[in-house]
Parts: sequence; structure tokens; C-alpha cells
Amino acid sequence: MVLNRELEVALIQTMPTGDLEANLSRVEELVEKAITDYPNTELVVFGEHFSSPLGKEFYEKLSEEIPGPRFSLFSKLSKKYKINIIGGSFAEKYQGKLFNTSLSFDKSGLLIGLHRKVHLFDIDIPDKITAKESETFSGGSSATLIKIPEFGVVGEGICYDIRFPELATIASRNNAFCMVYPSAFNTTTGPLHWSLLARSRALDNQMYVIMCSPARNMDSTYKVYGHSMVVDPSGKIIAEAGEGEEILHSTLKPEAISQFRQNIPIRVQTRFDVYKDISEGAVTSCIEVADTDSDN
Amino acid sequence: MVLNRELEVALIQTMPTGDLEANLSRVEELVEKAITDYPNTELVVFGEHFSSPLGKEFYEKLSEEIPGPRFSLFSKLSKKYKINIIGGSFAEKYQGKLFNTSLSFDKSGLLIGLHRKVHLFDIDIPDKITAKESETFSGGSSATLIKIPEFGVVGEGICYDIRFPELATIASRNNAFCMVYPSAFNTTTGPLHWSLLARSRALDNQMYVIMCSPARNMDSTYKVYGHSMVVDPSGKIIAEAGEGEEILHSTLKPEAISQFRQNIPIRVQTRFDVYKDISEGAVTSCIEVADTDSDN
Repeated sequence: MVLNRELEVALIQTMPTGDLEANLSRVEELVEKAITDYPNTELVVFGEHFSSPLGKEFYEKLSEEIPGPRFSLFSKLSKKYKINIIGGSFAEKYQGKLFNTSLSFDKSGLLIGLHRKVHLFDIDIPDKITAKESETFSGGSSATLIKIPEFGVVGEGICYDIRFPELATIASRNNAFCMVYPSAFNTTTGPLHWSLLARSRALDNQMYVIMCSPARNMDSTYKVYGHSMVVDPSGKIIAEAGEGEEILHSTLKPEAISQFRQNIPIRVQTRFDVYKDISEGAVTSCIEVADTDSDN
Repeated sequence: MVLNRELEVALIQTMPTGDLEANLSRVEELVEKAITDYPNTELVVFGEHFSSPLGKEFYEKLSEEIPGPRFSLFSKLSKKYKINIIGGSFAEKYQGKLFNTSLSFDKSGLLIGLHRKVHLFDIDIPDKITAKESETFSGGSSATLIKIPEFGVVGEGICYDIRFPELATIASRNNAFCMVYPSAFNTTTGPLHWSLLARSRALDNQMYVIMCSPARNMDSTYKVYGHSMVVDPSGKIIAEAGEGEEILHSTLKPEAISQFRQNIPIRVQTRFDVYKDISEGAVTSCIEVADTDSDN
């Protein structure tokens, strides 16, 4: 079993403002509400830039060096409510650069994961959406696996990382039961590709996929898509949020993975005599957080 | 440009019976009709087992050794109508074994491609669909690239091959403009995964994907899904057939590929420092048909 037992998850789709303190205070309220509404929740997930509006003018201003206010808050909340947290992402100041970074914590408040977005969002669809994240951020250099005590391993990617199938393949072949993508698609790429990408990563790897977005702020220049979702290992959407602030609850089941893998056993039918196994060899990955401090 | 100029394609969704001669005679009529209806067609594609019902009891009986009746017919028709043909698949007798094999021809009637299905359809969804293709067929040992004169390179896979993303990735990174899958999904896996798989291979590789199926025969044990389709490089379905005998026409456009690759430039944003390039190194592939005679 790659997932040891049923796991109830809550995806928190936040509506951040330019005030970091207010945003984190709202996060605290929302986690409390999630646990009140769904007392068996054991994993809480946030979106990309869950505590800052999307926009160049905010990142540096609302950035943090680890351990800063998000680190402290998530560590406190995970311990208080005995939940694991995959804490979306924020602008992390590190070695004089900014990274788009996600921190994860276990039930005792310990840091168990750190992912720095590997693929930066540089796209140009004229008259629709143009972005150059690499002007502000540096890219991480590692595929990330997070070991959640009692449950198993999840892989993590941030938003644009999902367009590169390799991270999910690596995670799945390293026994992950789920790929988690804190993300913030927009109203152009969202309707086109959000669910297609989530469903195809799930189906190809026969694992759960969690996409967690912030909410859509109509006053913002960058219109976030929203639609946080959970996709099961057969590629079926089992939970989907709307566009506003929302808590989305879902349950991941071990037998949904094992059953589908038995039905369509692609994992034992791969032909590594014809093509290589992308998950083998010189792949950078980290279960231990200590490993992530290296750029290699 | 990976596709040199506009390419009009016709997908022929045949309804085969147990009579090979009648089936091939119907193929001849359908090609004539396709060219009459769409005179600018330069590529004609057929489905998996386009000239035989799906079922163990038919394969050996309707098999052929190359060059046999399908080889001769396709070679003749491609020359007669000056069209390229990707000739679906049939049971090929070779070295005392059966392979699920596809032959392709250029406008002069020359063989330009031979793909032997690599991944055999062994699945078990209780009370829905159980299949063990490996009881009858042996698997091929090669990713296949076909160079179509005047146009460019296409990659080929057969049906279940599409569940393994590697073949499409290899083709795309070797400058293919399209992945062609002669296929025959069923009424269980078809509604679940047919378009999802086609769309995700297209989007991840920013290339066209052609899925060509036989028609559904309600008297047959194996109920074929049908729904032959063409998906554009952004993952959008641009043509889709129904379930019966049908000729589906579509046009592949060079600028649809180049435009989308410019908009979302994932092909130059891959991070081969983090993960390997699956298309590099010890990958078996063949543009030259001669290469395919080896099992290595």
C-alpha cells in the first residue's frame, strides 16, 4: 500500500490582500473552521502565494526568510490541531535571491518538506496573459518528495511545474500516493488546461492529484482561476471548488489506488528495455529537508 | 517548422467482418470516397485491426506475413491516389509469432514505417472488460518514427501504447509534428480515458495527436468505442467521429504548432539538470524500416 490508511484532506482556497498579518490571521481562522467542519482532517493544503496577492509589486514586500511568520504559524497550527500541512507557497528570501517556496509540516509541528518551484512561469499569450516570473524569482533545483508520518510519501510541484510530467513520474515511481500542486492558474490557462493537466498526471501515474489555488480577486490584475480540486488515481475529479474563498474537503482512499493499479497494471507493464526509466539515476530528490539546502 | 506545410488528413473508421477479402474491398471503396469528398487529402489513417473483428478467434485466421494483401493494397492505393497511408494494424506473422503491426506508405507506394505494438493490452476490470492480448501476440521492441516526405516526422503507437507517455515524448523530442495511434478502446475504457489520454499526449508534447478506431459492431463480443479523433497541440479536440463507419476529415496546420510552442514555451524550459531527458541515450527508434527487423 503506498497510502497506509484513509486520509481526509482540506484544501483552503484563500483570498489574500496586501496585508500579510491580516492574511495569516485569516489563515488561522480558516484552519480552525476546516477542523471544526471536518474533524477528521489530517492534511491541510494551501495554494501558491496563499498569503500574498499575485503581482510583482507584492513578492519582495511580503517575502520571508525561513523561519519567518508563515513557518511559525504553520508549525504552531499543525501541532495545535495535530494535522499535517502542505503550506502552499510564498516568496522566500534565500542567499540574496527570491524563490517560490513551499513548506510542509507534520502533526508535531516539524518541517517535513521544502519545495522551491523548479519551472518558472514565463509565458506569452498576446492579449491574454503574459508573465515573466523569472524576472523576480530563481528556480529551485530539485524534485521534492515529502514523507508524511503514518500515511506515506507525496510528491510536490508548484503550479507551472505541473506542465512538466517528470516531477509526477519521479514521485509516483518513488511510491508517492499523491502529487500536490499549490498553484495559481489564471482565467486564460485555467479553463484550457487546469483539469486536463491534473487528470493526466493522475491517470498516467495512477495516483491522487491535489491542486490548491488561491481565490479569484476581481480587483487584482492577475485573475486567478480558483477551482482547487482533487483527482483520483483513475483521472476522475472527486472534488472541485468554485472561485471564491472556500474550504474543499475530500477523502483519499488506499483501495482506490490499489484497485485501479490492479485493473490497468501499467506500472508493471512499462518497457524500460525500449525507453529509460526517468525516475532512475541522476535525479535530484529530497525526502530529508536538509538535502534541499544544496543547489545540486 | 516541424510540419512543413498544411496537411489534410482523413481518418477511416472501418466496420470489419470476418471476411478479409470483403474488408479490403471496402477499404478500397472508402479510400476512393475519402479522396472524392476531400480531394486535398494527403494522409489517410486506419484503426487498430481495421480489417478484422476484434477477438482471439480472428487474429491467426486473418493474419498476414509481410508483404501480404494489406501491404499490396496500401502500396497500390497510396500510389494510385498519391497519398500517404498509416495503415492501422493487423495480426502479422513473423518469426513464428504474431505481432500487432502497422505499416505506413508514402505517395509513391513505398513502405516508410513499421510499428509493432510495444505494450500489450492485458487488463482486468471485473464485470466490465478483461483482456489478455499477450496470450496471442508478442510485443514489439521499438519506438517508431515515420518520416513522411514533404511534411515531416510522425511518431506511432498502437492503442494501449498511448497509456505509456514515453513513446510520444520520444517522438516529440525527435521533432515529430504528430503522434498517430491506431486504436480500439472499448465501451468501458473509451468513455473514461480515450480523449483524456489523447489530449494529454498532445498538450504535454505540443503536437497533434490522431486516434483512429474501427467502428462499433454491436454483434461483436468486444464493443469498440469508435470516436476517432484529432487533437491539436494545445489539447483541443478539433475533429471527432461517432461510433459507426465514417470518414473523418481534418487539417493539421504548422502555425498551430509553432504558435502554441511560442505562447507556452515548455520545450525550452525543461530542466534536464533536475531530471533526465527520456528521449536521449539508449532509446530504440526507427525511421528506416530496415531497422525494425531487429528485436533490439
